[in-house]
Amino acid sequence: MVAPMPRSARSTTIGDVGEFGFLAKLLPRLRGGSGILVGPGQDCAVIRGGGRRYLFTVDALVEGVHFLRGWLSPYQLGRKSFLVNASDVAAMGGRPRFCVVNLAVPPAYRVSDLSALQAGIVAAATETGAAVVGGNLTSAQQLSIAIALLGDAPKRIVTRQGARSGHRIYVTGTVGDAALGCRAVRDGTPAPPSALRRFRQPTVRLQAGRWLVESGVASAMIDISDGLVQDLGHVCAESGVGAEVYAAGVPRSAAYRRAYGADATLALTGGEDYELLCTVPERHVKRLASNQARLGCAIACIGEVTAGRGIRIVDEEGRVRPLRATGYDHFRREGRDEP
Amino acid sequence: MVAPMPRSARSTTIGDVGEFGFLAKLLPRLRGGSGILVGPGQDCAVIRGGGRRYLFTVDALVEGVHFLRGWLSPYQLGRKSFLVNASDVAAMGGRPRFCVVNLAVPPAYRVSDLSALQAGIVAAATETGAAVVGGNLTSAQQLSIAIALLGDAPKRIVTRQGARSGHRIYVTGTVGDAALGCRAVRDGTPAPPSALRRFRQPTVRLQAGRWLVESGVASAMIDISDGLVQDLGHVCAESGVGAEVYAAGVPRSAAYRRAYGADATLALTGGEDYELLCTVPERHVKRLASNQARLGCAIACIGEVTAGRGIRIVDEEGRVRPLRATGYDHFRREGRDEP
Repeated sequence: MVAPMPRSARSTTIGDVGEFGFLAKLLPRLRGGSGILVGPGQDCAVIRGGGRRYLFTVDALVEGVHFLRGWLSPYQLGRKSFLVNASDVAAMGGRPRFCVVNLAVPPAYRVSDLSALQAGIVAAATETGAAVVGGNLTSAQQLSIAIALLGDAPKRIVTRQGARSGHRIYVTGTVGDAALGCRAVRDGTPAPPSALRRFRQPTVRLQAGRWLVESGVASAMIDISDGLVQDLGHVCAESGVGAEVYAAGVPRSAAYRRAYGADATLALTGGEDYELLCTVPERHVKRLASNQARLGCAIACIGEVTAGRGIRIVDEEGRVRPLRATGYDHFRREGRDEP
Repeated sequence: MVAPMPRSARSTTIGDVGEFGFLAKLLPRLRGGSGILVGPGQDCAVIRGGGRRYLFTVDALVEGVHFLRGWLSPYQLGRKSFLVNASDVAAMGGRPRFCVVNLAVPPAYRVSDLSALQAGIVAAATETGAAVVGGNLTSAQQLSIAIALLGDAPKRIVTRQGARSGHRIYVTGTVGDAALGCRAVRDGTPAPPSALRRFRQPTVRLQAGRWLVESGVASAMIDISDGLVQDLGHVCAESGVGAEVYAAGVPRSAAYRRAYGADATLALTGGEDYELLCTVPERHVKRLASNQARLGCAIACIGEVTAGRGIRIVDEEGRVRPLRATGYDHFRREGRDEP
């Protein structure tokens, strides 16, 4: 093998700067325009038409990047492809309505598998009140499913930009299970069925997202797809704030605790949770506590927004704990922080 | 090498049945639903929200399938990725408004190329009155760009289903140039700049599409992406009719005639024209003729819808001419009909 050229001697690649490095440069050039209430860079865009507001988002699952053949059945893969999009609509408090599907499929892919995959997409759409209205089918080396989803927007807009110093940080459900399930599937090791299910068929917090936005309780929100700390980092960067996270407060399932004990590392960085992370001003904390039943899931306080920059993880003994990595970047695999 | 299993002994693949074979089975199961005026299987879906109608479509360009690196500059590729979607909106008489972009990019792809590609998408969107409101960036082996486009729908809905026996068949602009340009780029042979331009930067017939729909002149319409005969075949199949096409009437550029003389084969089957093909009832033919200036491009009568099934190509001498292939299917490359 030929030694790679030093970085300075060749052109910078997307692998060098990563997804978020590229987006940080691109996004400021894209914002704004007629009928656009929220442009690129949030979980969904918010657009206006005929006196109504809509959410618009796109996400993709790619073989070899997000999954390997055999990790999920074609039906599960179809469902998950839709649900990761629905999760972005949940993070803006909306309702999924219409989607179009781009399927890129190797020629040797079985028709029966493609039918099952398609059925999974349709089933997940139907479950969330949405419909598949169009699509495109193309040949490709890797199986990949890109779905663009249009949703009804709530009256209030909550983005990643509303977190302020002193706001509490909340997370729905439990985190870390999907990453635990993913590692088991990847390594061929046993895992609790609940963890496998969370990896294969994400829970989407549509009801919680809607209440948190419509009630006025959430000041900023994001869905946790790339890892809690990394996604909290997006909220902090966009809001111009920092955060302190109490590791002990991060909600974890019994299955997670059996596997990792008190170690919250994977829950903080693992990704694919599709839970919601939101910030809540002090004055709304009581209202949130008394309305938990309306969310359709648990919600836990995991920390506080701070005036400074950066995220501090505080462990059970009150020590600030460094993390080697914060989450997932498709282009930068090295240095993931695993227990 | 091991001999391939006979087809009967293994599972049927998407390569066996092709894109259109699969879609023919899938689509009847998807149509219908609340707020859906036109479901999957047309150039765009038509959806309703807040008293307005919108068009919704998705299309993708994939490296190694639709293009090879070097065939187009990243900027041209970005523009084309948007324009192939805008062409679907043109075929339904709409106006492009908002799009979301899914970029799948190999890690070694240069940041400067990705920026140029993105700039091309934004430029083409802006030219047609649309805006990029969101996107997703993922790693992949092949470069691929999937764009989902939302447009304003016209008051009247024209699909592929309105062709009736006796209606005339019309095509905008000229066909065959893009295929001529594509072959030159592929084979490294010289080609007229106009043909290269048509391949690299398709002309989108938004003005023509809008007039043909809003005037009530077009009874059915489609954009020619996979080859004139194949796309006419979709109109015929969906309308339950046949067609007779007069090869001599198929509009070809001077550059095409210099390359292929009177042979219309590539113009009939080549694909990537992004012209509009529509059918026009006899009673509207005069109105179309007297309003040609409103289309922003030429339009030519190429044949007639017939009561039977199938498409007959009639040559200059009035002989029915067989075609080995009718156009392009991503999964079935063999048997293309080339001059």
